[in-house]
Amino acid sequence: MDFEKLSDIIKDENRIKIGTDIEDKYLSDALNRNKGKADVLIFPINTEEVSSIMKIAYENGIPVTPRGAGTGLVGATIPTRGGIILDLSLMKNIVELDENTLTVTVQPGILLVDLQKFVESKGFFYPPDPGEKNASIGGNISTNAGGMRAVKYGVTRDYVMGLEVVLADGTILNTGGKVIKNSSGLDIKDLIIGSEGTLAIITRAILKLIPKPKKSISAIIPFNSLKEGIDTVIKIIKKNANPTAIEFMESDVIENAERFLKLKFPSDRGKAYLLLTFDGDEEFEIESNYKKVKEVALENNALDFILLDKKDDIERTWKIRGALVTAVEAVSEQEPIDIVVPIDRSADFINYTKVAEKEFGIKISSFGHAGDGNVHLCVIRNGMEENLWNEKSRKLLKALYRKGKELNGLPSGEHGIGINKKPYFIDVTDKINVEYMRRIKKAFDEKGILNSGKSYSI
Amino acid sequence: MDFEKLSDIIKDENRIKIGTDIEDKYLSDALNRNKGKADVLIFPINTEEVSSIMKIAYENGIPVTPRGAGTGLVGATIPTRGGIILDLSLMKNIVELDENTLTVTVQPGILLVDLQKFVESKGFFYPPDPGEKNASIGGNISTNAGGMRAVKYGVTRDYVMGLEVVLADGTILNTGGKVIKNSSGLDIKDLIIGSEGTLAIITRAILKLIPKPKKSISAIIPFNSLKEGIDTVIKIIKKNANPTAIEFMESDVIENAERFLKLKFPSDRGKAYLLLTFDGDEEFEIESNYKKVKEVALENNALDFILLDKKDDIERTWKIRGALVTAVEAVSEQEPIDIVVPIDRSADFINYTKVAEKEFGIKISSFGHAGDGNVHLCVIRNGMEENLWNEKSRKLLKALYRKGKELNGLPSGEHGIGINKKPYFIDVTDKINVEYMRRIKKAFDEKGILNSGKSYSI
Repeated sequence: MDFEKLSDIIKDENRIKIGTDIEDKYLSDALNRNKGKADVLIFPINTEEVSSIMKIAYENGIPVTPRGAGTGLVGATIPTRGGIILDLSLMKNIVELDENTLTVTVQPGILLVDLQKFVESKGFFYPPDPGEKNASIGGNISTNAGGMRAVKYGVTRDYVMGLEVVLADGTILNTGGKVIKNSSGLDIKDLIIGSEGTLAIITRAILKLIPKPKKSISAIIPFNSLKEGIDTVIKIIKKNANPTAIEFMESDVIENAERFLKLKFPSDRGKAYLLLTFDGDEEFEIESNYKKVKEVALENNALDFILLDKKDDIERTWKIRGALVTAVEAVSEQEPIDIVVPIDRSADFINYTKVAEKEFGIKISSFGHAGDGNVHLCVIRNGMEENLWNEKSRKLLKALYRKGKELNGLPSGEHGIGINKKPYFIDVTDKINVEYMRRIKKAFDEKGILNSGKSYSI
Repeated sequence: MDFEKLSDIIKDENRIKIGTDIEDKYLSDALNRNKGKADVLIFPINTEEVSSIMKIAYENGIPVTPRGAGTGLVGATIPTRGGIILDLSLMKNIVELDENTLTVTVQPGILLVDLQKFVESKGFFYPPDPGEKNASIGGNISTNAGGMRAVKYGVTRDYVMGLEVVLADGTILNTGGKVIKNSSGLDIKDLIIGSEGTLAIITRAILKLIPKPKKSISAIIPFNSLKEGIDTVIKIIKKNANPTAIEFMESDVIENAERFLKLKFPSDRGKAYLLLTFDGDEEFEIESNYKKVKEVALENNALDFILLDKKDDIERTWKIRGALVTAVEAVSEQEPIDIVVPIDRSADFINYTKVAEKEFGIKISSFGHAGDGNVHLCVIRNGMEENLWNEKSRKLLKALYRKGKELNGLPSGEHGIGINKKPYFIDVTDKINVEYMRRIKKAFDEKGILNSGKSYSI
């Protein structure tokens, strides 16, 4: 590879690492299970540098793997084909807060936690709230990250108003803008959102904000069984009670997280729990909403309705919710799954996991976003011998993804496909859809240098 | 053209019209100004027929122009290249109302008015509300129609969860579904939304519903000048008062509509007006919201705040709002424009129209969606001699679109581009964007048979 040309662009040698100087963490993702190879790792600091690097990559047919904070769970940041790793973490500026249009313009490397903190300090609110707060916004956009608050506020896609991207050949393209409506030609912006770095490098994003809700409360609803809890969710949604989040979890997963964090969950009455939040500007609005839910819940076998209005209780509870996966991982290797099904099929899907657990002899923990059908599963190794685990877990995963499809679901609600889920994605996705995704890829990246091999891509 | 093969598919001769049997209205759009030519007009009744017709069109390279109810304003339904007109108006079934997932599945030919009536009778609500209620849902999706309620509820795109489409070669493709989150490969669905029939024929749509708000009120706020009214809009939005709609209009446009409809607007105190609605389930919620707006308005030179809570007053007022364009058209030929700018640039844009009016000597009426920066202009001919009108109006339109771009706006918020706005769209859109739109078109329709020549397409 022609490192000289790259060094001409990136003169600061702290921002370009070659060969064995590249630390392992840049060759993997958050699961740190698979490792790729790369010739060079570059940390650009502006769009022009990204553009210049892509021009060289394009001319020489060099593979490029973009990455943000590296918190992904599907291997999309693993450089499977060598070449250049483009780490965008230094491009983390807030370019502009525009209070008139309620937008914030940022570089892709800014972390979600920093963005949220910044806009909230100014009285605004960026609603998308994936569990991983140390993810970069560029990563969130590339996976169309969802999170807890999708029930009320939608997902990342709903908050991306405009993008500046660098195309495979180094050209800079702007799509969308600070406008609320758009019927001006094809929607390139939404094509790039969720494309896991396969179509373009995101170098800037205009994000929609809302005024920060003045008040927020949470509530815990214990049930004797997960089924009773999940069955109640649709009834809650139909009540138009406008909850911000509806999460579900079983007691054994909570107990595991309690041990891990040395914290106590505010209730131990249930075998399963719903955890909800409500936000708004007015006390009466929130009260009217949670009372609707309380009524429905108690009519549907809820054991209690525990209102959390103290800051400490709310924080502790959500900390436990946030640590469920990490707490599982601390105990055993696991495969994270985020199949999404229509909300009224969540119960069917979870029931199937109970059947599959027995059939395959592998423990599955389920929890997640009950309010939007985005079920999270941890398929847990629990010390199983490697070959057996590989064989059995693959079969189990295939069965789970097929069940998701049977229930009119999709393979990923928010994590993306990357390389880990690719075989299952290909297995359950109509061939014609994969073909047209590949045609679009070719239209954007005919040489196949941009994160090729990930997700739908060959 | 091989009519025999088409007649083999469509055996009912009422559903296939050849040559001069094709009525003029199928050769144009709602403005009825330009007329195309076609060899055959077909009314398919199901997806399989559409697929079979497209297979023949594809094999023989026959141009296809899809149309719904023909209410478009930009010429997208004009068959400029002959061939087949595919009229989807008979495919108007409601396939399924799914109360559990809050979705309705429809064929594309159903009219917005019929869909709204149906779902509201079941206690649900389909929020997108373009002025033209006799448009088809397929047309609404193809233009990403916006309308009045975008301020609170968003646009058509936000309510399309899944699509079944027929591709150029007749293949049937399904994208999206009854799921709330999706991070499973490229987003083909959003690419088709707003594509004005250039990528695929929409044959079925899964639409998101919300529970029907129990109450709705409107309010009229008169001002001494349009500037004062528009300046107040941003202050209203920042107050988090959650209005459903914020429209603006000047008194002369209202008076024209009053004459046309023989109805009286509830106020004659202002030179300009804001018209707002608020909806919700609870009286106190609506009251708390409109009181915030009343306070801001009266602090900002509003002459009054007239609450409309009687059904009759609300209906009459919105009827006048709905008839503004028609009332202008009854008096004179006009060019409808729906440039969209960031909300805080609406005032600048409207001010520019006042300057342009004088400079070009052509009357411009402005009104529209103040809450989302989607300004509607009627550029009015007023009996100007044809050649002079053609020359001067083109120059004026070019200047208006360029001003829109200068203010970081886009050529169309909701009407689409079609053929009428194509030269202006091409003039103000970055070349690279048009190029990538054309690449995508090629990936979907390499023979260029699907509504080619419209919008971005060659």
